[in-house]
Amino acid sequence: MIVNLAERAHNHNWRVDPIVRSLLDTDFYKLLMLQFIWKHFPEVNARFTIVNRTAGVKLAERVAEDDLRLQLEYVRGLRFRKSELIWLAGNTFYGTRGIFDPRFLEWLDTDLQLPEFTMTAVDGQLRLEFDGPWAQVTLWEVYALSILSELKTRAALRELSEFELDIVYARAKARLWGKIERLRGVPGLRVADFGTRRRHSFLWQEYVVRAMRDALGAAFTGTSNTYLAYKHDMEAIGTNAHELPMALAALAENDEQLKASQYHLLDLWQNTYQRELLVMLPDTFGTTQFLRNAPEWVADWTGQRIDSKDPFAAGEEYIAWLAERGRDARGKLMIASDGLDVDTILALHAQFSGVIQAGFTAQDFQRAEDFLDGRKWKPERRIRFSAGWGTLLTNDFRDCDPRRDTGAQSAFDPISLVCKLAEANGRATVKLSDNFAKANGTPEDIARYRRVFGAEGMSNQPTLV
Amino acid sequence: MIVNLAERAHNHNWRVDPIVRSLLDTDFYKLLMLQFIWKHFPEVNARFTIVNRTAGVKLAERVAEDDLRLQLEYVRGLRFRKSELIWLAGNTFYGTRGIFDPRFLEWLDTDLQLPEFTMTAVDGQLRLEFDGPWAQVTLWEVYALSILSELKTRAALRELSEFELDIVYARAKARLWGKIERLRGVPGLRVADFGTRRRHSFLWQEYVVRAMRDALGAAFTGTSNTYLAYKHDMEAIGTNAHELPMALAALAENDEQLKASQYHLLDLWQNTYQRELLVMLPDTFGTTQFLRNAPEWVADWTGQRIDSKDPFAAGEEYIAWLAERGRDARGKLMIASDGLDVDTILALHAQFSGVIQAGFTAQDFQRAEDFLDGRKWKPERRIRFSAGWGTLLTNDFRDCDPRRDTGAQSAFDPISLVCKLAEANGRATVKLSDNFAKANGTPEDIARYRRVFGAEGMSNQPTLV
Repeated sequence: MIVNLAERAHNHNWRVDPIVRSLLDTDFYKLLMLQFIWKHFPEVNARFTIVNRTAGVKLAERVAEDDLRLQLEYVRGLRFRKSELIWLAGNTFYGTRGIFDPRFLEWLDTDLQLPEFTMTAVDGQLRLEFDGPWAQVTLWEVYALSILSELKTRAALRELSEFELDIVYARAKARLWGKIERLRGVPGLRVADFGTRRRHSFLWQEYVVRAMRDALGAAFTGTSNTYLAYKHDMEAIGTNAHELPMALAALAENDEQLKASQYHLLDLWQNTYQRELLVMLPDTFGTTQFLRNAPEWVADWTGQRIDSKDPFAAGEEYIAWLAERGRDARGKLMIASDGLDVDTILALHAQFSGVIQAGFTAQDFQRAEDFLDGRKWKPERRIRFSAGWGTLLTNDFRDCDPRRDTGAQSAFDPISLVCKLAEANGRATVKLSDNFAKANGTPEDIARYRRVFGAEGMSNQPTLV
Repeated sequence: MIVNLAERAHNHNWRVDPIVRSLLDTDFYKLLMLQFIWKHFPEVNARFTIVNRTAGVKLAERVAEDDLRLQLEYVRGLRFRKSELIWLAGNTFYGTRGIFDPRFLEWLDTDLQLPEFTMTAVDGQLRLEFDGPWAQVTLWEVYALSILSELKTRAALRELSEFELDIVYARAKARLWGKIERLRGVPGLRVADFGTRRRHSFLWQEYVVRAMRDALGAAFTGTSNTYLAYKHDMEAIGTNAHELPMALAALAENDEQLKASQYHLLDLWQNTYQRELLVMLPDTFGTTQFLRNAPEWVADWTGQRIDSKDPFAAGEEYIAWLAERGRDARGKLMIASDGLDVDTILALHAQFSGVIQAGFTAQDFQRAEDFLDGRKWKPERRIRFSAGWGTLLTNDFRDCDPRRDTGAQSAFDPISLVCKLAEANGRATVKLSDNFAKANGTPEDIARYRRVFGAEGMSNQPTLV
């Protein structure tokens, strides 16, 4: 074999092996939200902070500040490429072309500049902050999270011999394919990749989505990762996230405006986007109060994403609410996106799509029946169920680490890292969510929000990933 | 990435992707036996035939005759390379330098030429025959077997998509590493690779032996594959095989000579090789008769390889026989080489080396105790036990095939393919072995051999691989 001298020389002189290779390497909803912010809130200032909810893992001890700085600076130096902007303009998203305003794409091309970041290490944790005009700063979220996640991965990989590296990936692939085989052939299944921010690495996410598409065909509906959608001709998936209701709530001038802000957001959103993009995220301040107090037109929205409530219960709550409002749930969309794995996906699909598969256990079945309010499970579609599969799709390396015994903790275990909108125009934000453990904000602010929104339907659930 | 144009052009113009890349790519014992034959039986003619003992697999339907012909012709065109011959001359084998006579190496260099082969397809089976001077023809055995094995593999791989290929190897690696982890750290363990002839492929065998060395260190004692030993500075392992006693038996002029031929062979062998190479293979015509009737000096040999008897029973029989003859078994070697896998290796190690490991089950323990004649198992070495791990090391792809359900048959399953010495100087050979199912020869010849040698200690056991 004749050595490729140019390649070898290039490889041993790399200054940086970038983690984020393109500004498209972000969740598609960030771009939809960015256009929304650019259009409606150009003057708002925002501050995002990184919080590691897995306190036991000291990130600063694993990730070198210099490496992190290098990766973040690399992203700051990136620009949307001409071909990427042309794709955003010309591609159809959810069946519609021209979702992005030409003036917005022009702004992306010439005016977008990620602001500088501030980094400090405190008690073994890295504190990373991004401050600036909301439209400039919002994209930092996913870039920073996927960079931190992959730097943690690289630190773990660095400890291993070449053979051990090979074991890690052989096992992870065997594990992935085991999951895919359980999903393959399940009628009517709809699964999308939602795993960008906590992925093992960019290349692993790319492997995973290509494997999913190859094996599942139409049942794999696409990826939230815009760059992978672009690179591999897949559907880009996603609509909106908590930062919008959180910002609008923080900007509210009094309790009444605060309570109304969650619907004001939906009103602005439906003036910007239509049809399949009308998927609400009602759990920011509690799903139950959101639904009960919602204006009539909210029931016309296409669907709901469930992100912090038990999805079996939340789906039933949504179906019952639609019935009350006289809407047919079978045309509506229900997206689960919180800590999903194969078992839950198949159980939810059984409950809401009426499909039971060979791999389905009696326990799964029982789980599904428990939520049917005494009715028997029937093989019929009750709502359009879709799974947004995140960390346990793109970062499931359990029992893959050759340095750990089965079941023990591993340096590859994902951590619950979030990058949250901390302030809008200098005012602290709050998120309550349906899970007390996921609440965010100062105790005083949380108390005020709970007073305004109540706590009906909330509970305590362990946060997995 | 700049494309390596030369490499791409080379790759899409390959005439043949060789399976056997070097004449060293054979079991080390073939070279020891070759020198023995060259020295003592230069005038004997031999005929080898390929027999597929797995009748259910129609080889001719899987392997194209042209591909097989191309590979076999490629091997006929190979010569020992200068550096390979220098290595044979200068390397130590079992601690001894100069095992190979310079005149023999000279003969390898200038006079060795594999004879032509004859190939016919009958009832879906490929019949392959090699005929010529024994010293010229004997090496065909392992080349032909590993070529057929890998061509069968390639046929199965050809059906798969790129992702499916990736699944196959990810699963096979995960499987391999699972086995290696069970062996890692077991005190006093000695395992060698004996899997050349029925390997999945050359590259997979190379991966396996490197993985074993990397993970097991000194517990991995080496490989029977001379080329891999040469390429990776490992110990080459092996001594002799059934073709020697079979040939000498066929050459005997009467029943008395026939019965004596098995010891005559050992006498010739110990005039040629010493010390660790004095490992006998007593099962050719039945182990029990071999040991009972052996001359006194046979008990001075270093060890025994067990290839067709239950190794738990055969080891005990050997130890008891050594005690009868007043020899200390603890200095002797017992090599098991028939259808081994992790469970058997650990159980044998427990029984004969007195070592019990974490992964050892109550069943394994019971199995070991069953052979101790009522004595309790004790943590002490009773004999130097060593495992010759073959097909289930280099070709275990069970449950790796994405086109098959768990446990079902797969195109990757190894088949029991043997290349046997069929005639010596025109006289048919016979092998009885300790397992009736493994007997070889015409019914009349087998009847005659049974009359001469008896059938004591033989039994019926399923042939796995």
